Amino acid sequence: MFEAAELGRKISREDFDAMAPGLRTELLALQQQLREADFPVVVLFAGVDGAGKNETVNLLNEWMDPRWIVTRAYGPSSDEERERPEYWRYWRDLPPKGKVGLFMSSWYHHPLIDRVTDKISGPELDERLERIVHFEKTLADEGALILKFWMHLSQKAQKKRLKSLEKDELTAWQVTKQDWQHWEMYDKFVAAAERMIMHTSKGHAPWQIVEGADPRYRSAVVLQTLKEAITKHFAARDAVKKVNAEIKGKKSDQPGALASQPSILSSLDMTQDIEGAEYNQALQEQRARLAHLYHAAKEKGVSTALVFEGWDAAGKGGTIRRLTNALNARDYQVIPIAAPTEEERAQHYLWRFWRHIARAGRVTVFDRSWYGRVLVERVEGFCTEEAWRRAYGEIVDFEKQLTDHGIVMCKFWLHITAEEQLARFNARGEIEYKKWKLTDEDWRNREQWGAYEQAVNDMVERTSTTDAPWTLVEANSKNFARVKVMRTVADALEAALGKPGKKKKD
Amino acid sequence: MFEAAELGRKISREDFDAMAPGLRTELLALQQQLREADFPVVVLFAGVDGAGKNETVNLLNEWMDPRWIVTRAYGPSSDEERERPEYWRYWRDLPPKGKVGLFMSSWYHHPLIDRVTDKISGPELDERLERIVHFEKTLADEGALILKFWMHLSQKAQKKRLKSLEKDELTAWQVTKQDWQHWEMYDKFVAAAERMIMHTSKGHAPWQIVEGADPRYRSAVVLQTLKEAITKHFAARDAVKKVNAEIKGKKSDQPGALASQPSILSSLDMTQDIEGAEYNQALQEQRARLAHLYHAAKEKGVSTALVFEGWDAAGKGGTIRRLTNALNARDYQVIPIAAPTEEERAQHYLWRFWRHIARAGRVTVFDRSWYGRVLVERVEGFCTEEAWRRAYGEIVDFEKQLTDHGIVMCKFWLHITAEEQLARFNARGEIEYKKWKLTDEDWRNREQWGAYEQAVNDMVERTSTTDAPWTLVEANSKNFARVKVMRTVADALEAALGKPGKKKKD
Repeated sequence: MFEAAELGRKISREDFDAMAPGLRTELLALQQQLREADFPVVVLFAGVDGAGKNETVNLLNEWMDPRWIVTRAYGPSSDEERERPEYWRYWRDLPPKGKVGLFMSSWYHHPLIDRVTDKISGPELDERLERIVHFEKTLADEGALILKFWMHLSQKAQKKRLKSLEKDELTAWQVTKQDWQHWEMYDKFVAAAERMIMHTSKGHAPWQIVEGADPRYRSAVVLQTLKEAITKHFAARDAVKKVNAEIKGKKSDQPGALASQPSILSSLDMTQDIEGAEYNQALQEQRARLAHLYHAAKEKGVSTALVFEGWDAAGKGGTIRRLTNALNARDYQVIPIAAPTEEERAQHYLWRFWRHIARAGRVTVFDRSWYGRVLVERVEGFCTEEAWRRAYGEIVDFEKQLTDHGIVMCKFWLHITAEEQLARFNARGEIEYKKWKLTDEDWRNREQWGAYEQAVNDMVERTSTTDAPWTLVEANSKNFARVKVMRTVADALEAALGKPGKKKKD
Repeated sequence: MFEAAELGRKISREDFDAMAPGLRTELLALQQQLREADFPVVVLFAGVDGAGKNETVNLLNEWMDPRWIVTRAYGPSSDEERERPEYWRYWRDLPPKGKVGLFMSSWYHHPLIDRVTDKISGPELDERLERIVHFEKTLADEGALILKFWMHLSQKAQKKRLKSLEKDELTAWQVTKQDWQHWEMYDKFVAAAERMIMHTSKGHAPWQIVEGADPRYRSAVVLQTLKEAITKHFAARDAVKKVNAEIKGKKSDQPGALASQPSILSSLDMTQDIEGAEYNQALQEQRARLAHLYHAAKEKGVSTALVFEGWDAAGKGGTIRRLTNALNARDYQVIPIAAPTEEERAQHYLWRFWRHIARAGRVTVFDRSWYGRVLVERVEGFCTEEAWRRAYGEIVDFEKQLTDHGIVMCKFWLHITAEEQLARFNARGEIEYKKWKLTDEDWRNREQWGAYEQAVNDMVERTSTTDAPWTLVEANSKNFARVKVMRTVADALEAALGKPGKKKKD
């Protein structure tokens, strides 16, 4: 695979100097254009030590406008990072739309080194590479331009390079024992890299192998590739936008496209209720269970993520408050998901949920959630059909990362009938301190009942997994709903604490 | 001090139930009004264990709209937190404008416990309380409403309360060994609390002592106080706005108010230069020093914060790039300070700088900085005179927290003459890849030269401290400026590494 990167190719100073000003101007112009763009640029550098990863990143920072570049490199995880799924730290560092992110020692680094040092087997490496493919696909699907450079040196060239760095007083410190250790494992390193590159070079995130021996040559290749890729990406995005606009135009001619089918919700027994003393007793019982169980979970560092979705006026708020009353306020956080902020809008739609993933032992309650994409955004046409269809897989993948990390997850759809909703809307208008809850939007959403029902049905079908199941809650009776939710959470905690702890990644 | 909170005051269920709906409606209405407000509400709870801190916070979450409440409690610091100044974690959790933040075990907790357990002396406690006063003053000066509740119990009442919690299966786990230890130290605890409350109860952030024995009574007091304080604060803010508008109106009649005085900048020898081989040698020399020194600093976990301010076209970008070229790209971050984002605008103006404070051993370069407040914001009238005058003290305090934590700090003003700037502006228009750098704003800023000169003068005079000194850089010669900046940073690192390490707080 790397033969073409060991040919000793060079560019003379004259040729480089002749090319440089033009290329630089073009890159700066592209960067200016990028500031208005609706996508980020993610550039990864990996490769043989000494092949110029750092130098190239420095050069990019020097040639381009550093204000629109984010450079990140990763050392050992902090405890805040270890208490969250592995990819949390990468998510929090992603460049927003319009910026370029340069990543070193990033998500490829640990799998590769772990394989070279025999901490993981080949198939285990493949599994972790699969995670990378998913991650990059998720970013690319939302429009990110992803470029990956493998900076290469032959073993001979690497030795020469390390020796020359060591000779220079200015750079000697850059060469570590680890570098020489890696050099000795060169064959193994390169074999693992080959497997890695083959597995993860995709149309949406291709690897480019760069011969790293000559600084001018490697710089020219990286800069030229970057320039061409950004230019192409602009063209491709324009084409996608055109197609989407056409699809949207067509769709408005078919108003029946979202006709309601018999949904999973229609099978619920909505008459279930629990009253008076029985309710009080059940509530107290579940409160006590929850209080014990969440405390035990906290001791073990097990976090809980609870997702609440449901019809307007289904009683999400009241249910959440009954639940959190069993907890100590210092241990939980209710995250209300409203319209995204400016910083959130400039990121992948999952970014704003990643940022709320709590440290070990906490309970996080999402009052509405990432499911907005396949509910309101789908029904109201805030995103393309392609985007919400894709979201099912992205969400399952996201939740899997949480549950694989040991986070206990419950997802609730609070269901009420259309008649019950109407009765509650009318009642809200009459109680002074509940008036603020009723908005015009609630009435508008109600008109879309059928479309939402279809969306809920699809959502539950496609995203209910063993580790992150949906619970449909018959909520015409608030009492019944509250008890059922608390019981479900308690059951989930009990099951999680009972079974042998899942291995935490990282 | 606490006698009035040991009287056994109660509210009957009937009275409470009669009062509750009205109070709740008012609080919800205020919260709605708050969403449009230009200030956050910061509510702290401290007090005797068992006096209802958690219960009250739960109640507030239940009664009000939890979507506009942020609840935070603090356990032991994470390593990411320990690697930064003590207050970093509080800054990152501050509620944005329009939200209510409920804080438990927060900035008062550690000083108090440290005093009770004799880890610190009385005077040391005072010193840490002084830090709190500064912090709260900074927030209040920007408009925050700050309320602090001391939830109180007599020693007898505390014993009763802990016993009763222990009896109830539902709450037994809440009582820890530590609680009983604290109970045994009751007198000491209360004495320290008294000192703390006396020292930190200020007009802008008053303590309210609440008798905590009766849940209804304490709830009523907290809710009522909160309601009244928010109502009053709205009125006070309106009054301030009116006065500010009047001042602004008057100022526009006095265009000569910012007449230029002979400034510190006029004393600089702007002819200094360094050329050719001499320059190259000096540059290499400083690069080598820097490369060594920053690496040594990294090993020791010593971070560096560099601030670059200067005239447009003074060469900040080029100087920063020469400097960062001596560093490994994974160890530094250039933070360009442009217009604040929506999330940043909703916070205290220092918040957006706190969020960029790096972990141990990193170099952070601020390309423009928090000094914007006393430069562009002052000159362009983006903030009130009262605000920028206050900022000198706030900034000195902010930087002191960084340098006290062991961060090495250098601040550079890159100075060029007005003639040199004009020459550079004209040249920029002619070099293709530099054209983008020249904007209309640059020309507008140039017209305000005198006002900026005065602002720079005041800034340097008022914010140059021993640990965070300003270096004025004669930058008519780019070469001279680059070498001087690099030498200054290297000198600062050398001095910091030479002297015995400062004790890290926390």
